[in-house]
Amino acid sequence: MRIKVAGTGLTKFGELWDKSLSDLAFEASLEAINDSRLVSNDIDAVYVANMLSGQTSSQDHLGAVIASSLNIKGAAFRIEGACASGGLALHLAIQSILAGTYKNVLVIGAEKMTDVPQSDISAALMGAGSEEERKAGLTFPALYALMAKAHMAKFGTTRNQLASVSVKNHYHASFNEKAQFPFEISMDKVLTSPMICSPLSLFDASPVTDGASAVVLSSQTRSSASSAYNPPRRWALTPSRCTSQDVFITGSAVATDTIDLAQRSSLVEIAATKKACQKALKQAGVDLKDIKIAEVHDCFTIAEILAMEDLGFCNKGEGGEFIQKGTTRLGGKLPVNTSGGLKACGHPVGATGIKQIIEITHQLQKRAGKRQVNEVNLGLTHNVGGSGATAVVHILQN
Amino acid sequence: MRIKVAGTGLTKFGELWDKSLSDLAFEASLEAINDSRLVSNDIDAVYVANMLSGQTSSQDHLGAVIASSLNIKGAAFRIEGACASGGLALHLAIQSILAGTYKNVLVIGAEKMTDVPQSDISAALMGAGSEEERKAGLTFPALYALMAKAHMAKFGTTRNQLASVSVKNHYHASFNEKAQFPFEISMDKVLTSPMICSPLSLFDASPVTDGASAVVLSSQTRSSASSAYNPPRRWALTPSRCTSQDVFITGSAVATDTIDLAQRSSLVEIAATKKACQKALKQAGVDLKDIKIAEVHDCFTIAEILAMEDLGFCNKGEGGEFIQKGTTRLGGKLPVNTSGGLKACGHPVGATGIKQIIEITHQLQKRAGKRQVNEVNLGLTHNVGGSGATAVVHILQN
Repeated sequence: MRIKVAGTGLTKFGELWDKSLSDLAFEASLEAINDSRLVSNDIDAVYVANMLSGQTSSQDHLGAVIASSLNIKGAAFRIEGACASGGLALHLAIQSILAGTYKNVLVIGAEKMTDVPQSDISAALMGAGSEEERKAGLTFPALYALMAKAHMAKFGTTRNQLASVSVKNHYHASFNEKAQFPFEISMDKVLTSPMICSPLSLFDASPVTDGASAVVLSSQTRSSASSAYNPPRRWALTPSRCTSQDVFITGSAVATDTIDLAQRSSLVEIAATKKACQKALKQAGVDLKDIKIAEVHDCFTIAEILAMEDLGFCNKGEGGEFIQKGTTRLGGKLPVNTSGGLKACGHPVGATGIKQIIEITHQLQKRAGKRQVNEVNLGLTHNVGGSGATAVVHILQN
Repeated sequence: MRIKVAGTGLTKFGELWDKSLSDLAFEASLEAINDSRLVSNDIDAVYVANMLSGQTSSQDHLGAVIASSLNIKGAAFRIEGACASGGLALHLAIQSILAGTYKNVLVIGAEKMTDVPQSDISAALMGAGSEEERKAGLTFPALYALMAKAHMAKFGTTRNQLASVSVKNHYHASFNEKAQFPFEISMDKVLTSPMICSPLSLFDASPVTDGASAVVLSSQTRSSASSAYNPPRRWALTPSRCTSQDVFITGSAVATDTIDLAQRSSLVEIAATKKACQKALKQAGVDLKDIKIAEVHDCFTIAEILAMEDLGFCNKGEGGEFIQKGTTRLGGKLPVNTSGGLKACGHPVGATGIKQIIEITHQLQKRAGKRQVNEVNLGLTHNVGGSGATAVVHILQN
């Protein structure tokens, strides 16, 4: 069995004051279902990734709410894991297809963040971290600033290297009409932006965003005789049945670490990223060196540097230089965050992990427009919750 | 493959002012892991069912929080579907075992409701319903009162029949030391309790409760040659490898309906319950008439009457009489809610669906103490979200 990305749907990301959470979820879902050429009746289950709607929209039970709006009567779930909600929802949706329980499922991430006071959103987002560190006053910028400081001290990572992540992702977003900030910014602009928590300034941080993203995932049994998921772990493709547009998820792995940063053995790595990546690659039966494109979790610029190292694209400590020298820029050897990433495409929390899948899918389908990467057939997504307590990695190929 | 309930853990249900959400979750989880004779390291994934912790404890990302407290480094998820969160988490956990991805998983439901003002809890709970009906002023007692009124008008269901549900469940809870209200109440007590929303008075409603419940679920492959989930759909047992204590989940199904009560074709049935029950029975390959015991979702007394009818234990319109004549009381032909149900055992939202599984498991293991039902080998649980937008049914057998 293999999991096909049968359809995708994505709203504009940004400050969308004229649209409710339900409006956004409906728009992305309908687009994904239409793109899959299925109808609502074909959808067996709905997985909704969302972190904050109880606090921001007084609405929980989002699985049923969204299934209801689409007239879907199958199963419906809401999955939450802070900023990794999208990745987790995808992982659970995949399990149910592999189990043989559902054939076509809709995975939808949505978040509505700009209609409540900024202080309320900041407070609500702190629910992603540990109670102890929250009470000690450690905000998320502070947690990532600690990691950045440690990385700078240990490896000589520079302020300019951090800023280069932001500059690159804005450059990529300038080719993405769905991005919240579809324009370039200069190195100087990042470096002179207001300091939030040293060494991270305003343009080192991803923004508060409204938006929704959706994919339809479908099972494709090669033959009834070989429908068992396991073994083999490698979901080999059958070329004769594939078109060049077909994209499959061939690896999906989740790992956790301590919720407290203080309890980790190292401040300069996200152990959950390493573990999830290794599992996902093994599951897909591919080598990291064959990955041609990646969407990674750049909630702060330091996070993308850590991701490069922990995923294994470069050695530990060399992430800053790896990015600064242009390897991960469009035209480089391994374009990273061609969507603009969380930084410039935007970060509607629950939608982020699913948007990553959509970006890689579109790249593999050669429909990424001006930001299309050449000769790409194998990609990776990396979604993180909290300060690294949850990491989710998916492998996509065609 | 079949899913074994390998261990159970349950805290006292009630107003537990000296315990936090994490305390409760930890206590239930540890008991379940110990009961399974596994250790934390053996647990591949953690599924946390919770509705309100963002609002009541300023804490989200509960999968990682609870996995972290137990030193579990596998995957972790939070699942929410209002009062059906527990049932949904079980369903998703089962999918991941059937997929072959995880072998031993912890499913934990926890809710902390009594430490915030009653008005805040009432407001937060309204997030389970539709925005439109919420804005129209329809609280949950009102939604269920509409169903009760319609049932009384159409079928002649009486106020005394409604009250008999409460009396029975309190009687059952009097044998359950974990129950929030472990004592009997009289018919007169229910009938003279303060009116909340006619015809439902205070003792027709389940209470606000703190508590946690946890189960360890494990895969048991009969042989490597027959490890595929499907076919056969019926997960036949291998008696030689079972002890009388072994309990298996053999059916797990979820269905949804419109989130708005106003959009349903009938006020006197929960269509999602019917659909989920039929699917679960088919999956388990058993007939409803062979079910010997059930835990059903009695958030209000009318809900248990509807459940009896929609699950198929009696004809539509006869649920009130069915319960009033004692069929579902301990000693009757089909004891229902031997735990005391949501009404008398308590209703810590996320924990409820998992507590139902624990009660049936203990009954099938003959360890239900003074409320043990004789010769019971096949049971059913029924968990509902909102006013029936989500329904989850599980079948357990040994």
